[in-house]
Amino acid sequence: MQFLGAFFVLPIIVSVIYREKEGISFLIIAAITFAVGTLITLFKPKNTAFYAREGFVAVSLSWILLSLIGAVPFVVTGQIPNIVDAVFETVSGFTTTGASILTDVESMPQTVMFWRCFTNWIGGMGVLVFIMAILPLSGNYNMHLMRAESTGPSVGKLVPRVKNTAKILYGIYIGLTAVLIVSYICTGMRVYDAFIIAFSTMGTGGFANLNASLGGYSHASQVVCIIFMILCGVNFNAYFLLINKKPKEFFKLEEVRLYLIILLLSAAAITIQIRGSYASLAAAGHDATFQVVSIMTTTGFSTANFDAWPMLSKTVLLFLMFVGGCAGSTSGGIKVSRLVILFRTLGKEAAHLTHPRSVKKMRLNGQTVNEEVSKSVYSFIIAYVLVLLVSVFIVSRDNFDFTTSFTSVLSMLGNVGPGLSVVGPTGNYAAFSAVSKITLLIDMLAGRLEIFPMMVLFYIGTWRKG
Amino acid sequence: MQFLGAFFVLPIIVSVIYREKEGISFLIIAAITFAVGTLITLFKPKNTAFYAREGFVAVSLSWILLSLIGAVPFVVTGQIPNIVDAVFETVSGFTTTGASILTDVESMPQTVMFWRCFTNWIGGMGVLVFIMAILPLSGNYNMHLMRAESTGPSVGKLVPRVKNTAKILYGIYIGLTAVLIVSYICTGMRVYDAFIIAFSTMGTGGFANLNASLGGYSHASQVVCIIFMILCGVNFNAYFLLINKKPKEFFKLEEVRLYLIILLLSAAAITIQIRGSYASLAAAGHDATFQVVSIMTTTGFSTANFDAWPMLSKTVLLFLMFVGGCAGSTSGGIKVSRLVILFRTLGKEAAHLTHPRSVKKMRLNGQTVNEEVSKSVYSFIIAYVLVLLVSVFIVSRDNFDFTTSFTSVLSMLGNVGPGLSVVGPTGNYAAFSAVSKITLLIDMLAGRLEIFPMMVLFYIGTWRKG
Repeated sequence: MQFLGAFFVLPIIVSVIYREKEGISFLIIAAITFAVGTLITLFKPKNTAFYAREGFVAVSLSWILLSLIGAVPFVVTGQIPNIVDAVFETVSGFTTTGASILTDVESMPQTVMFWRCFTNWIGGMGVLVFIMAILPLSGNYNMHLMRAESTGPSVGKLVPRVKNTAKILYGIYIGLTAVLIVSYICTGMRVYDAFIIAFSTMGTGGFANLNASLGGYSHASQVVCIIFMILCGVNFNAYFLLINKKPKEFFKLEEVRLYLIILLLSAAAITIQIRGSYASLAAAGHDATFQVVSIMTTTGFSTANFDAWPMLSKTVLLFLMFVGGCAGSTSGGIKVSRLVILFRTLGKEAAHLTHPRSVKKMRLNGQTVNEEVSKSVYSFIIAYVLVLLVSVFIVSRDNFDFTTSFTSVLSMLGNVGPGLSVVGPTGNYAAFSAVSKITLLIDMLAGRLEIFPMMVLFYIGTWRKG
Repeated sequence: MQFLGAFFVLPIIVSVIYREKEGISFLIIAAITFAVGTLITLFKPKNTAFYAREGFVAVSLSWILLSLIGAVPFVVTGQIPNIVDAVFETVSGFTTTGASILTDVESMPQTVMFWRCFTNWIGGMGVLVFIMAILPLSGNYNMHLMRAESTGPSVGKLVPRVKNTAKILYGIYIGLTAVLIVSYICTGMRVYDAFIIAFSTMGTGGFANLNASLGGYSHASQVVCIIFMILCGVNFNAYFLLINKKPKEFFKLEEVRLYLIILLLSAAAITIQIRGSYASLAAAGHDATFQVVSIMTTTGFSTANFDAWPMLSKTVLLFLMFVGGCAGSTSGGIKVSRLVILFRTLGKEAAHLTHPRSVKKMRLNGQTVNEEVSKSVYSFIIAYVLVLLVSVFIVSRDNFDFTTSFTSVLSMLGNVGPGLSVVGPTGNYAAFSAVSKITLLIDMLAGRLEIFPMMVLFYIGTWRKG
């Protein structure tokens, strides 16, 4: 009853997106979804009270519904006839994971390819944030939706009204995308390629139209890609500070600084290790940087087969899959700010243990972090690890080696894309059973929506009357 | 200064143990340690105030010192000439891990072998708990030591005086050991073998005198071993209830019930999976049960090469490595009671999220669990995962596959013994570099002392004046 609210806003946005598509089958699907959407809109929800629980449920169900509808074009065009595979590919797109069950992406028609990469772009900023920007809805309603869909421990309102916040974020997102498309064209990409790769890059998704991923494009294009992946891993609120001419505050953001430091150190460490198998230090540095940035921002593009790198380099990459980018960015993973809060909380507890009388206040980005936030970070990380373990358990039924089972789930939860071994940068997810694919698909959604919305959905108490 | 207190009690106990040993080199070492111990006793600590911090530091340092002294026999007798290897083997013994760097244990002299398995027995109940039982020390001092050394989220005093609690626990421990030795002899073991295997079983250590581990003994001996491993994975306080004729309370212990249910389900699941490669269901069930019990109680004996089992069975075993036995037992891992508290806390939070007005009290074993305990369980699990990740990172320098790096650290932290791949039940830890061995050695200590005492030791604030 209460989550009818989610249904009625959803098909409208879907149809808005579809209208941009070419192809008759797309038009038909768009028409049908639009019609159904309008029909559902007629049933207005009776209960307009909207709390955190309803926000979580609405967002989860919207994403699931969106994925099912998004999968229709793949099935109808006959490109991915298997329904589970088609939904997997769509969820992978919307959650900006970029994991594919396709063994040969290059054989796909341009229209379907465009839709595939566009799902990355839509998923990046969040579908519902977009809706908020264009639809007139009351304040509380929006805030709860936005909180459930945004990445990171807390959502700050940039401006008093949520709607305007959403508009500003989308403005930045669209602006950056435009700059990126132009940059790609300048580095020699075809216009069509520039568009779809820009969509995948901005959403930190990772879908590409070549089997060699970004390896098939020029060195200059790869450099542009690195820069924009880094930019998309930063909290988008940071850009708002820049636009508002507060560069001082921008550089005060500890999370962004730490994020850049981690990127730099990881790239340097891997460069040293893989130096031997490259002709020059620059070439090794380029590939190391590209892979580090691609994994940490959870994009998942690749220019080298890192599965063949030394184990320590691979472990660095697995760590980055855990970490992810900054809160409020389009990236996945646990997020840098959560880890900062985690370590500060642990440090505080250690200090308390050894010096019981000491009382320290924890600060992040110049703001005090209260107990409640520390606790929610703990819960989040533990829930993350639990979901990881349970999923590894289910996926291991397929009898792949431990590395494959573990890294595939880790990669899905972090919305990265590639893992190691069978699911390495040259591999794909085609070999998994349907049960494993559905598990991984739920992991992608859980990772994108940051676990709790999905848990609330599966939690039996949610469906009891409050 | 304050932890001198730990030094002066330590060599005395060591020498007590050494006196039971045969062999001239053992006697000489015993004499020297005893002499040094007596010397140190003369320097009485000035500051007799003894808090949690001092308890942690004292216990950590005692274990490290004990391991160094315990390694001397291996080096002096020339059995393990490399010092890092000898310390690794000793730490593995005292922490009841049972991981070995020896490629052929059968070539070892009986005396050294006896000492090796005896370290398992000493480590099982905790060295300092033993000291408390025999030395007259004041109450608070003891409680803090015991808290730092015991396994599980909280130590209950069985009787008002800590010293008596320690005595009762050791009484149960010695009693069970005696019964086990007799049982082993009845099932056809040589007296010497019965003694040393009993030591390893009781401590849930896993050192054996045959390369085939328990696979080299009769079926009946293996059944006895399964029964006693299960018994040692139970909270020893539970036996106190039984002795005091409170069987009702015994069966009310949720942790014990859950522990047995997990064992049963895991064994059943694996039996079904490996059925195909065994002649009879009974044979498959026997091997599955033995391995499940051995891993969950973190003993580490083996009768089958589970590394060759299907991936799902291996994942079940990896899960059990995480879980471990009950709090207050001689086993390692996170402990069943911590997981119960974790899931109840998560459930409570989910209920709170969806029904903000609901207030539930959490109970375990009939007692209310307060916020403080929930929080410490969270911290523990997160610290556990962090130590795991950092260690995997260091160990991956050796360039083994991911499965080896990951499962070796997991196994060491849980004090299990074998892992998968290179460190599987037929493998050993000889191939690791010195740096990795030292890392794994610290993991074993951290696992045995439950992370925080070791963290306090490494935390710089500890050494500042309070």
